[in-house]
Order: sequence, then structure tokens, then C-alpha cells
Amino acid sequence: MTGKTLAEKLLSDKSGTDARAGDYVEAEIDVAMAHDITGPLAFQTFDEVTGEDADLFAPDRTIFTIDHHAPADGVQAANNHNAVREFAAKHGAHQFDVGDGICHAVLVEEGFVKPGDLVIGADSHSTTYGGIGAFGTGVGSTDLGTALATGELWFRVPETMRFEVEGELADGVYAKDLILRFIGDVGFDGCTYMAAEYGGSTIESLPIHERLVLSNMAIEMGGKAGFVEPDLRTIDYLERQTGEVVPFDDDLHSDEDATYDSVHTYRAEDLAPQVSKPSNPENAVDVTEVEGTEIDQLFVGTCTNGRYEDIKLVADILDGEELAPNVRMVVVPASKSVYQYMLQTGVFQTLTDAGAVIQSAGCGPCAGYHQGVLGDDDICLATANRNFPGREGSMQSQVYLASPATVGASALYGEITDPRGVQTERYDDTVFAEVLS
Amino acid sequence: MTGKTLAEKLLSDKSGTDARAGDYVEAEIDVAMAHDITGPLAFQTFDEVTGEDADLFAPDRTIFTIDHHAPADGVQAANNHNAVREFAAKHGAHQFDVGDGICHAVLVEEGFVKPGDLVIGADSHSTTYGGIGAFGTGVGSTDLGTALATGELWFRVPETMRFEVEGELADGVYAKDLILRFIGDVGFDGCTYMAAEYGGSTIESLPIHERLVLSNMAIEMGGKAGFVEPDLRTIDYLERQTGEVVPFDDDLHSDEDATYDSVHTYRAEDLAPQVSKPSNPENAVDVTEVEGTEIDQLFVGTCTNGRYEDIKLVADILDGEELAPNVRMVVVPASKSVYQYMLQTGVFQTLTDAGAVIQSAGCGPCAGYHQGVLGDDDICLATANRNFPGREGSMQSQVYLASPATVGASALYGEITDPRGVQTERYDDTVFAEVLS
Repeated sequence: MTGKTLAEKLLSDKSGTDARAGDYVEAEIDVAMAHDITGPLAFQTFDEVTGEDADLFAPDRTIFTIDHHAPADGVQAANNHNAVREFAAKHGAHQFDVGDGICHAVLVEEGFVKPGDLVIGADSHSTTYGGIGAFGTGVGSTDLGTALATGELWFRVPETMRFEVEGELADGVYAKDLILRFIGDVGFDGCTYMAAEYGGSTIESLPIHERLVLSNMAIEMGGKAGFVEPDLRTIDYLERQTGEVVPFDDDLHSDEDATYDSVHTYRAEDLAPQVSKPSNPENAVDVTEVEGTEIDQLFVGTCTNGRYEDIKLVADILDGEELAPNVRMVVVPASKSVYQYMLQTGVFQTLTDAGAVIQSAGCGPCAGYHQGVLGDDDICLATANRNFPGREGSMQSQVYLASPATVGASALYGEITDPRGVQTERYDDTVFAEVLS
Repeated sequence: MTGKTLAEKLLSDKSGTDARAGDYVEAEIDVAMAHDITGPLAFQTFDEVTGEDADLFAPDRTIFTIDHHAPADGVQAANNHNAVREFAAKHGAHQFDVGDGICHAVLVEEGFVKPGDLVIGADSHSTTYGGIGAFGTGVGSTDLGTALATGELWFRVPETMRFEVEGELADGVYAKDLILRFIGDVGFDGCTYMAAEYGGSTIESLPIHERLVLSNMAIEMGGKAGFVEPDLRTIDYLERQTGEVVPFDDDLHSDEDATYDSVHTYRAEDLAPQVSKPSNPENAVDVTEVEGTEIDQLFVGTCTNGRYEDIKLVADILDGEELAPNVRMVVVPASKSVYQYMLQTGVFQTLTDAGAVIQSAGCGPCAGYHQGVLGDDDICLATANRNFPGREGSMQSQVYLASPATVGASALYGEITDPRGVQTERYDDTVFAEVLS
């Protein structure tokens, strides 16, 4: 037999089988998560299938968040929040409330996910956990509902598509630009049910908060999971973030002779900042192609790019400046920790002074629910992950996706702007940690 | 003839007639205002009645705000925002955007309203401006639409109901408690189409931010307007707030022999903190009657009690403490200035540390649109002005109204709590001004 991909290794480990792409396995779950939209239906399934008095498979590894409609933007949302609170309290699960942040940010920051874990979340961006070397994947509420009781779920072992990047990214070019380019190249369904695997010297040099961007958006090309092989940087990050030392497992990588569906290779130097035009993430083009496009709203946040380093980068660009008069900016930090750090470090004040409005941590207007929904004529440039028609509001509205650097630079001029003409930093993982300590 | 009430004097002045209660007059408007809900219909009326190319009667005294659904919580809201932006830009009116704050806070803070002015706003709480001695009243969008062109509107000159309070308020008792008591005594329709007039030594000693609470809630007993006679404190406040010296007009008071509909007299010392029980502001009782009522959500904000001094009072109580575990708190500052002062003075950090979530300035969940809507089983204690069934969300939810002090004290214990047992301050108008300077 040839060697295995990381996806095959992880599902072999969790299923106790010699799992290969295409196999169906029953695997043990390490961590399960649902939020205020998907939780209530999962609870109903749990109650119906296992009985209301059943126990969770592992309350200490079950996390419920209130992030999508937080604070409640309607009665149904408020009722869902209460359902989450009640189920979590009854079963002793971890529960995060309004303003605590987005599920994917919270699970990583709070140390719920470790390299090598199998994590299911009732949210499509659960691929995020691959950024620290976990098999993270989104499942439906009913699948989650049964898994909450059994701690197991079936999987088709995915093929793996590898994205190999060598060299050094130019100033102003970030992981977000890489992933937009990847999606542009393979298409929004090009990696359907596969594991995306990101490797090469460029990826290895990325700080964790940027790796998480790659794994997060694997789903935007159809990926079942999205991996960056964990390394000592990962271990270091988790220790700084959580104070806990996670032992390094040097087998958590694809074997050299593993079988890939395909390998896509890139030179980092060749990459310009990318912008995905309306209305599909696969519409990625060099920023120079859309430079000068007038915008109405800038949105900084989401599980993709709402981390401290992302928002700080925008604040650096806007420091002492004001938003262009034709634009408004909504900033929604990904977690309460990020929000608090922004307060402590002056990032909050800088953005407010520049004219941005900042909401409590959560998903914000990403899915068009509230906190900055777009009208018919609105054009938005967002650090978000999706720009399908109507995603952030009106079916006639238009959303462009870009990196925080591109959004920050564009905020100065009120039109899509190449961030390479503006001073931008690349923040290492220590930035967030230093504020912590 | 007998003397005149302040309401009669102002409408006499603005109509050029000897106006008496019951008369119908055509009066000249000083200031006109509409917001993101009422603006678009007013614009439609304006365009239809006067033609799209007509001029505003006074662009520099016409103000449009985006506050009720800010940031946009739906496509219709977003389209309304754009309608406000476009109409304001086309006609050269003042326009405040998402996060700038609630119309009534902005108009006072920015110095748009002076004692003796006639102010119409397409919002029922336009009575607020009476706190600085203006005739402020709410009008429908269509009335506003025509007045935007003509600068005139007809009024039935209101009778006046006087509330006379003598003596010193106890610690923990505020203007909010006074107005809840007044509404409780005369009923939610007891002052319908009258001007409420608040006087006596207690009222005279109140800082302006508390006077504004009295005028603001005049509408909750049906009032057409709600006056505190302007005095040197008013002039002082406006100068500090805006840097402009407004001349003092010593005729801006009711004559001694004015005819009142009725006069209600109170001793300040007799008043306990008040709470209006669900689901009518007139259900005001001493806090001791509802002490111990468990609550789920605390809401601090609105045009009634979302000023800096209100929020600082809550922060004082929560300083170094945490919210009771069973409650959540939503804080929505009334204006961007308030938000900024909260950042500068540490009030923001204190509240965040205590566990509150803070949204950008605006109306927040007051009318049940977003930012903390109540579910079926939710019980809320709010610094707001209305608690009709479904006002903040579900028709089954319950809202209690109280002062910021009562809300702050209750946040500590997770149940309605008498603020007289907790250290509370009475802030003078200088607090806000001192931060400014």
C-alpha cells in the first residue's frame, strides 16, 4: 500500500480501521459544536432519537454558541437563544452567549480543538479547525443531534487536493489572497467532498491566524475539510493561547507517497492581492482588475477574517485617518477576547475615531441577518467568505471579498484599492498573545 | 384676559396670533426632523406635494437620522437608509448615519434645538425637546413631508397639565422615577393632546439630562409636548454642550395666572424608585412591590435614558463587579458622542468587563427590531420608555421600566433590586461637559 494523506490518517485513527479515500467509516468524535441557528434542530433530534434524559457523549467536549443572530434580531432568534441556554444547562455542555463570539473563533481560542482531533460542527465553516491540524467538518443539525448522544458519525473518507505554495508573499498579500486564488482556480465546487491540504514553504511560514483563513474557506470550493499540517508553530500557538502544552505528534502529516486527487503548485511571489467579484467566491481576480470600483460599505469581521490581527491591520491603515466620505464601515470582532484586546490596545478607539461602527462579537452581517444588511444599490467590500447573490442582504446588492489589508486600504479611498500602495504589516501569532500576557 | 401657559406663548409667537388653548393656529417651524423609518414616507409626500425639485424650507434646520434600524437589520431598512442619504444629500439637509445616534440625542447635543423653538419630528418622542424649553412634538410622516417644504404646520393649541414637585429627591430616585409616577397617576392617556409642564423646586434643581427624561416621556401619558421652563441652567448646558451662547429669554415660562387643565403636586421626599410593570408605562409601582422579580435581560439605552450620565451610573454600580449569572445586559448609547466618552472615561471597559455587550449608538432593541429582541419567556428590565405587549419582542415577553440606577442595581442581583441599597450618584450636567473639554 502507498502512504496516507493526513485526512486518511486521522479517519483511520478515529475509526480504528485502515481508512482510504472512498471508504466509509464510523468514526469517534472528539468535539461537537452547534450554534443558535443549528442547535435547536439538533436538540430536537437528540430528544427524539435518544430521549430527553439521555446524556451527551461528552459534555466537556460539546460546545454551543450564540453568534449568528446575536444579539437577537427577532423573536425566533431570541427563542432559539433560550433553547440553546436551556439545553446546554440541562446537559452540562459549554455554552457561549451573546457577545462571546463566533463558534469557530471561540473553539480555537479557548483550546477546545487540538491537532489530530475530529471535530464536527453544525456550521459549514467548521473546516476552520484544519488550520491547527484537526479534521474539522460541517454537518447537518440532525447528524449532529444523533452524534451528540453517540459520539460517533459516519464519514466517506475524502480524497485530498493539495495546494503547494513556495516562496515569499509580497507585502500586502495574505492567506486570504491565497485562498481566493485557489478557489478561483479550482472553482466553487472544484474540491467537493475532498480534503484541501495546504503546504509548501509559504504555508509553513504563515502564522496560525492566517492558516485558519485557508482552512476556513476550504468549504468555498466544496471541501469536506481543509488542512495545514500542524507543526511546532501550531503547538507554540496553542500554548500561548490557552496556557496548555499540547504534545507534538510528528505523524500528523501526509506521507510522502500519499495519493492525491491533484496537486496545484504556486509561486508566492507571483500572487497579487485578490478580490472575488460578485457573486461567487470563485470570481477571484487581481485587485488591479477591479481597482477604482466605488463601494458603499466595508465589513470587517467573520470567522474568516475577524481575528485580532485582521482588525489591527485595518486599524493600522486607518490610524489617524478617516473613512472616505462615501463609505461606512461595520466592524464585528470574531470573539469577546478580540473585542477586549481591541479595547486595551487602542485598536477600538482608532477605528471609532476613523468613523467605523463596532458591534459586539459575533457573525455580524455576514449572512445578511442584521448589523449592516445591504440594500438594493449597495456595494460592499468584505473580509467575509461568501458573496453569493443576497448573501449580505438584497439580491441586487453586490459583495466583493478581499483581505483585511485590501479592505483597510479601500476604506481610505472609498473604492477598491491595491493595498500594496499602503503600509501594511504581517502580524505574527505573538501579537495576540503579547496582549494576553 | 388671564396669562398664558408656556405652550400658549410659544404657539402665539410662532403663529403671530394671540393663541389660547383650543385655538387652531398655523405656526412657523424652527426645526424639522425625520429618521430612517419615517423619513422615506415623508420624502414621498414632499416629492408628490411640492415636486421633486422643490427646496426644503430650511435645509440647515432640517435633520435626518439613521437610528431605528441602525445598522440595517434587513433589506427594507437598508433601502430606507439609502433613501435618507439620497434625499438629505440632494436637498442639503443635515444627515446623521449609522452609529451617530438617536435623533433626539443628536438634536440636543449638536445644538439644533434652542429654548423657545418649535420643533417637529416624525417620531413620537419629539416631546424630548421640551426639556430645554422648546415646543417639541411628534408628527406623522405626511405632515412632516409637507412641512419640509412650507416650514409651517397647523396645531391645536394644547391645554396644559402641570406637575409641581417640591423638595429633595432621595438618593437613588431620579427624574425617571418622577415621570413613571406621573404617568401612573394620570394614566397612559391622561394627558392626551395636552402640554405637560414640570415645575417646582425639585424640577428646577434637576440637571438637563434628567429634565429631558421628563419631557421625553410626556408622550407616554398622551402629551402633545412636555415642558420644563428653561432657565440659566439650560443656557449653561447649551453653551457647554455646543460652545455657543444662547441668549436667555426670561419670558419663556407660564404666567402666574395662566389657566391649567389641572395641577398635580408632589413632595419629592415621598417618592420611592418606581418600576412600571408589564405591559403599560402607567403600571408604575414602588420598586419594593416588585423587588425580587427575576429578570433575564437588562437594557440600558434609548432616547429616554441612554445618555452618558445614565450609562455612567450603571457602570459605577457595576465597577469591578460582574452581572448576576442569570442575566445578560445590552447597552446601546444614545449617541456617538456618548459612545466616545464611554471609551475615553473607562465606562466602556467597565461595562464590558462586567459582562455587558455594547452596540453602536442608536435605538437598539427599544422597539423590538434588533440588537436584543425578547423571546417568549424573556423578562426584561429596561431604562426605556414603553413596555406595551411585544414592544421589545415576543407578545409573551415582559418588560419592566425603571431608572438606570434601578437597572444597575438589579444587574448585580439578577432580580429587580431597590437602588437605595446601592451606592448611586446624581450627575450634574458638568460630567458630560468635563469630558468634552
